[in-house]
Amino acid sequence: MTDTIIFKPIGIIHTPFTERKGTPIQPHRGQGVKGTIEIFPQYAEGLADLDGFSHIYLIFYLHRSEGFKLRVIPYLDDIERGVFATRAPRRPNAIGLSIVRLEKIEGSTLYIEDVDMLDGTPLLDIKPFVRRFDEPDDIRIGWLEGKADHVDSMKDDGRFE
Amino acid sequence: MTDTIIFKPIGIIHTPFTERKGTPIQPHRGQGVKGTIEIFPQYAEGLADLDGFSHIYLIFYLHRSEGFKLRVIPYLDDIERGVFATRAPRRPNAIGLSIVRLEKIEGSTLYIEDVDMLDGTPLLDIKPFVRRFDEPDDIRIGWLEGKADHVDSMKDDGRFE
Repeated sequence: MTDTIIFKPIGIIHTPFTERKGTPIQPHRGQGVKGTIEIFPQYAEGLADLDGFSHIYLIFYLHRSEGFKLRVIPYLDDIERGVFATRAPRRPNAIGLSIVRLEKIEGSTLYIEDVDMLDGTPLLDIKPFVRRFDEPDDIRIGWLEGKADHVDSMKDDGRFE
Repeated sequence: MTDTIIFKPIGIIHTPFTERKGTPIQPHRGQGVKGTIEIFPQYAEGLADLDGFSHIYLIFYLHRSEGFKLRVIPYLDDIERGVFATRAPRRPNAIGLSIVRLEKIEGSTLYIEDVDMLDGTPLLDIKPFVRRFDEPDDIRIGWLEGKADHVDSMKDDGRFE
């Protein structure tokens, strides 16, 4: 039965961001904001060998997102777009995805950089980032063409509160 | 309360792969295997503007994965690694992540290419792939160094059944 899918957090992400407003809108390179992840003890053994990877995917629960809208005005635009063509947080399933830099692991604590999630975010999964697997060719980016480069200067303006 | 997180599928992924054994282990470029996604009608409006993107992230439920192991022998290796340093399917939260090529959208059907998931996989979320957001610098890939290039010739050998 897959109509209802139940997950449990494997840990908690700690960041300097306690409010959505002012939080970076993507974990873009060079940003350098540091955070930590506390992996719950029962999952710590699964961290073996992860420290060899410079970058990891975090899949997390957007725990402060309530409800969803199928059309949203994303940060980098001023007209409505389908929610699946954006990374806006109010999604049918409130799942966040970020690539962060992994600085080091001490025990069950991960020290990460380039964070864009709110403090206290429940972590669902970690996967290693491997360019060979994750870098497609011939990319088109639709409505974001010419806009994606502005992401470095954008902060959350609270529009999804 | 975030101890238990409940998601519902937004659609179903259809692929030629009905058994794990023989299924590609990553959706690597050039593979070209085609699939479709049926988005449930109540979410179809959220697909607006998505057709401008050549590649999308699919976040899905690994519905055939039962239980998990914190150490696994991944496809590209012959010694045990921590599960979070691999993309093995038997994870604490059975979440899959793939980048696929989006060929076209007709109504609520997405035509995709470079699929590596099993037929009938419940889809949880779609996000646009944007190189500017998702391509970090200075990447190290740990135990996969020198192994990742073999991914094209690897198929699932059934080890996670």
